[in-house]
Amino acid sequence: MQGFEKYKKMYFMPPVDCYDWVKKDAIEKAPIWCSVDLRDGNQALIEPMNLEEKVKFYQMLVDIGFKHIEVGFPAASETEYQFLRTIIERNMIPEDVTVQVLTQAREHIIKRTFEAIDGAPNVIVHVYNSTSVAQREQVFKKSKEEIKQIAVDGAKLVYDLAKNEKGNISFEYSPESFTGTEMDYALEVCNAVLDVWQPTKDRKAIINLPSTVEHSMPHVFACQVEYFNKNLKYRDNVLLSLHPHNDRGCGISDAELGLLAGADRIEGTLFGNGERTGNVDIVTLGMNMYSLGVDPQLDFHNMKEIRSTYEELTNMEVPMRQPYAGDLVFTAFSGSHQDAISKGMACHSTGNDPYWTVPYLPIDPKDLGRTYDSDVIRINSQSGKGGVSYVLKHAYGISLPDKMKEEFGYRVKDVSDKEHSELEAERIYDIFKSTYRDVDCVFCIPECHFKQNDGIEASVSISYKNETKAVTAKGNGRLDAVSNALKQNFNITYELSEYAEHALSRGSSSKAMAYVGITVNDKLIWGVGMDEDIIKASINALTAAINRADLIQA
Amino acid sequence: MQGFEKYKKMYFMPPVDCYDWVKKDAIEKAPIWCSVDLRDGNQALIEPMNLEEKVKFYQMLVDIGFKHIEVGFPAASETEYQFLRTIIERNMIPEDVTVQVLTQAREHIIKRTFEAIDGAPNVIVHVYNSTSVAQREQVFKKSKEEIKQIAVDGAKLVYDLAKNEKGNISFEYSPESFTGTEMDYALEVCNAVLDVWQPTKDRKAIINLPSTVEHSMPHVFACQVEYFNKNLKYRDNVLLSLHPHNDRGCGISDAELGLLAGADRIEGTLFGNGERTGNVDIVTLGMNMYSLGVDPQLDFHNMKEIRSTYEELTNMEVPMRQPYAGDLVFTAFSGSHQDAISKGMACHSTGNDPYWTVPYLPIDPKDLGRTYDSDVIRINSQSGKGGVSYVLKHAYGISLPDKMKEEFGYRVKDVSDKEHSELEAERIYDIFKSTYRDVDCVFCIPECHFKQNDGIEASVSISYKNETKAVTAKGNGRLDAVSNALKQNFNITYELSEYAEHALSRGSSSKAMAYVGITVNDKLIWGVGMDEDIIKASINALTAAINRADLIQA
Repeated sequence: MQGFEKYKKMYFMPPVDCYDWVKKDAIEKAPIWCSVDLRDGNQALIEPMNLEEKVKFYQMLVDIGFKHIEVGFPAASETEYQFLRTIIERNMIPEDVTVQVLTQAREHIIKRTFEAIDGAPNVIVHVYNSTSVAQREQVFKKSKEEIKQIAVDGAKLVYDLAKNEKGNISFEYSPESFTGTEMDYALEVCNAVLDVWQPTKDRKAIINLPSTVEHSMPHVFACQVEYFNKNLKYRDNVLLSLHPHNDRGCGISDAELGLLAGADRIEGTLFGNGERTGNVDIVTLGMNMYSLGVDPQLDFHNMKEIRSTYEELTNMEVPMRQPYAGDLVFTAFSGSHQDAISKGMACHSTGNDPYWTVPYLPIDPKDLGRTYDSDVIRINSQSGKGGVSYVLKHAYGISLPDKMKEEFGYRVKDVSDKEHSELEAERIYDIFKSTYRDVDCVFCIPECHFKQNDGIEASVSISYKNETKAVTAKGNGRLDAVSNALKQNFNITYELSEYAEHALSRGSSSKAMAYVGITVNDKLIWGVGMDEDIIKASINALTAAINRADLIQA
Repeated sequence: MQGFEKYKKMYFMPPVDCYDWVKKDAIEKAPIWCSVDLRDGNQALIEPMNLEEKVKFYQMLVDIGFKHIEVGFPAASETEYQFLRTIIERNMIPEDVTVQVLTQAREHIIKRTFEAIDGAPNVIVHVYNSTSVAQREQVFKKSKEEIKQIAVDGAKLVYDLAKNEKGNISFEYSPESFTGTEMDYALEVCNAVLDVWQPTKDRKAIINLPSTVEHSMPHVFACQVEYFNKNLKYRDNVLLSLHPHNDRGCGISDAELGLLAGADRIEGTLFGNGERTGNVDIVTLGMNMYSLGVDPQLDFHNMKEIRSTYEELTNMEVPMRQPYAGDLVFTAFSGSHQDAISKGMACHSTGNDPYWTVPYLPIDPKDLGRTYDSDVIRINSQSGKGGVSYVLKHAYGISLPDKMKEEFGYRVKDVSDKEHSELEAERIYDIFKSTYRDVDCVFCIPECHFKQNDGIEASVSISYKNETKAVTAKGNGRLDAVSNALKQNFNITYELSEYAEHALSRGSSSKAMAYVGITVNDKLIWGVGMDEDIIKASINALTAAINRADLIQA
C-alpha cells in the first residue's frame, strides 16, 4: 500500500530501561475508576446529551459504583454548568463520590468553575495543557520552557483560588498529548506542577497520563508509565492516572499493562465511547479482572439494562462483537464448539469443580444476565449435533438418545444450509416434531389393554384402512407385546432395538417423551411419542417409527 | 460485583523467562497474512455466506493482497466443497496465492479434502486438535499422552496421504485451545508433529498458536510465543503463526507483541469478524504498521469499497469507532481538537515537513479515501471557532477574519446547543449568510460612482423609505467615502474598523467576499457582502453591518 513512507514514530521511549512490569502476569486489585463519559464521551457524540439525559447517565454511573466522575467543563458550556448545579441541588452526589471538573487555567474560567462546584462535597479540579512536539510547534508555537510555564502558572492559579473555597478540593494535571511528548520533558513538567501543589498524604494530587492519540504499541506505553512511576516526585502522595484512547485498537492493553507498570487509576468510559476510536472501555477492563478472579469494584451484573440505557442516551450502538456486552460474544454456531460447551456445562453442573472452566466461554454468561438458550448455542449450517440437542434440551426439556443426536443434527444442518438462515429454537422443535412425531400414519392404535400373565399379554385395537380390529399378542414387556401384535397383524419384520423415555422437565411437565428406534435392513429408524401416559407415549413412538419405515402399504 | 471468586487463571506461563521481545519497540516488517474470513469468520455469521457471496469475498481478499487464504472445511460442508471447486475451476487462484483447507485427521475426511483441492497450485492442509486442560478433561476425557497421539496420528495420516498427490501441499498444525494448555506440553505436542513432517527449507511447516479464547493479558501471550520461538525444533523450516481472538479486547496486542516475540505469520479477518468477540482484525494490524512507516503488504486504500462489500456479504456492520474504518474515527467535534487540526493541516500544507504530524489524526484520512470536510471536522455544541471556520473555509472557500471567527463560533455552538443536533456544513453556511449577509435592510445603495480627486469622491444613491437620493462625500478610499456619505445622510456615528475581502476559491469562483466591521459604543458589528465586483461586495458588507447595528429608524 503506497504512502507509508510519510509516517514515522511519533512517540519517545523513556531515557532508561523500564521493563520491570513485564514480570507480573496479572492485575491483583482494581484501580480507582474515573468515568469520563459525561465529558470525553459526551463531546464525541454526534448529538451531545441534554441536561436530563446527563442526569440519568450520571445516576447510572453512581449505581455501577464509580467513585470519581468527570462531569464536564462547566465554565465552557451552559449545559454543563447547569448539569453540575442540578446534581448538586438535587443532592445526587453521595459522600463517597468525587466529581471532577475540567478547566483551563485562566482566572475568570476558574472562578466560574468554582461557582459551578459550590456545595459539592468533594471535587477534583482538572487542569491540562498540551505538551507534544507537534502541538508545541504547530499549534502553540512555543518553546519547551514556555509550555512548562503554562502548566506551572495554571497549577498556581487553581491552587491560589482554591484556598478560599470551603469544599474539599483536590487537583489533577494532564500533560495532554503525552504520547507525542519526550518522556524526560513530560516528567519535568509534571514534577514542576507537583512542586506547586506540594501534595500530602491527606490531599493527594493526580497526575494523569493521556494517550490522547495512541501512537505506539502498548508495551511502549507501559514502559513510559513505569518511568513515571519510578521518577515522579512526591510519589506516595500522587495518584498516577491513565487515560488511554484506542486509535491502534490497543486501549485495553494500554490500561492493563499500565496498571502493571504502577498506575493507580484509570479514566475511561462505558463501552469505549469517546473521541474518534473511543476512550478505553471500562466495562471490558472491569470484566477482564473479574474473569481472573479479581473484584472489579464495579457492578455490571445488569448489563442488559446498562447497555440499553447507554444506547438510548448516547444514540451509539454497542457492536455485536464488543467484549462482554455484544450480542454475539457468547455465541457458538460451530458444531465442535457447541459440543465442547455442552460437555463443559454438563461437567460444571456436577459441582465438582468450584471454578468456571467451560470451554469457549471465558465467563459464565449468566453473570451478565445472559441466557444459555438464546445467547450461547445458536444454530445455523455450521452447527452440529451437540448444539442442536443442547437447544432441544434447554429450550424444551427434550433429551435425545445419543444415537438419535447425530441423525437429527444432520437434518437440522441441512435445513439451515438450504434455507441459508439461522434457526431459532422453535423452528428446531418444529423440525423435530414434524420429522419424528407428527408422521403420516397408515394405521394407528386407539386402544390397548394389558394382562400380566407369564410375561405380558396385550390386546391391541389396530385401525387400518377404515377398519379397527383387536389383536392379542405376548411379549417380555408391554411395548414388546404391542410390537408383536403389530408384526403379527401386518406380517412385517423389524427389530425393536432402541427405547428411551423421560418426563418433560419444562413446559407441559406432566407429559412423557418416548423415543423408539426400530432396525429394518440394518437401518435404524426413529419415532417419537408424547403423552401423559408413559405407555401411550411409547406406543405412539413405535407407531411413528413403523410408519416412517414405510413397511405397510397405505 | 459478586461472583468473581469462581474464576481463576486458565493460562500457563512458560517454564523459563521469555522477556526478550519487550526490548523491541516496533514491528519492522509485515508478517505473512492469512485470511480466515471464509472459515472462522464465516462460521461465526448468523447467516453464513452462500457460494457466490464466498466467491466475491475471496476475490476481494486476493485483490487486497492476501497470499494465504483459508477457504473452509471442504470435507465437512457441501457449500465449502463446491466453493473450493468453483475457484479452482474458474482459475481464480493466482500462482502466488496458497489456499488453506481445514481438516480433521480421519482418513475418509482427508481423502475427500484431497478431492476438493485437486487442481489447486499450492495448498496448505491444516490439521488440529484440542490440547487444553479443560478440553482434555471435560470434552475428550483423555490423558496428555493420548491427546498427543491424536496429533501425531493426524500428522502421519495427512503426510502419508499427501505423498500421492501431485499438487504442492504443505502442512499446518494448530494445538487448538493453546491458551488453556501447559506451555511445555503444547511445545512437546508441536515438536512431535514436526518430527513426523520433517520440514525442510523448501517445504516449511506451519505451527499455528491460536488464542482460541483469550485468557491472559497480551504480554503473557508474547512470552508464550517467545518460548515457542526459542524452543521449536526445525525452527528455520517452520513458520510460526498466530491466530488471536479478542475475548479480552486485546487481539491486536496479542498479534503485535507476538510478532515482536518471533512470530512470522498472522491468521485473522477483515474488521475482526469471527467467533464471539471476533478474530484479530487484520485491517487494524496492517494500518498500525502503515502508520509507523512500515509497508503492510496489503492494500486498503479503497477502504470504503472494501467496507461496503464486507458489510453486504456478511451482514455485519463495521462499528462507528472501529480503528481506521469506522465512521467517526477521524472526526473531531471538540473545539480545541478542531483548532489544533486546522493549524496542523495548515503547517502540513506548507510542505516543510515530509512527515505527517497533524495533531489528533494518527494517519492522513485521505490515505483511506476519507475527506477532511465530511469526515474530520464535524460541528456540534462541543465545537469551537476553529472547527466552524475550518468548515466554512473547506466547504465554501470562506476565510473569516480572525476577529470574526470567535463571534461566529459562539453563534453556531449556540444553535447546535439549542437544537441539540449536529450541524452540517450547509447549515453552517446558512447561519452565516442569514446572520451577516441577508440582513433586513432599512436602506440600500442601488448605485455608486467614484471620482479620484484629492482622495476619493463618491456619489452614492441611497434608497430609504421609498425615496432615493444622491449624496456626495469624500474619503481616503472608496469604502471610506461611501461610509461618510451614509454618516452624513443619516446623521449617524460609528467607526469603520475592520475590512477584509477575498476571492471565493470554490464554487462561484469569480465572486468576491467582503467582511466589514464597524464599532458602535465599543461593540464590533460585522456585515458581509458578496458580488462579482469587489466594490459592490464591500459596500454590501458595510450596508449589512450598519443595518445590523440598528442605527437607523426603520
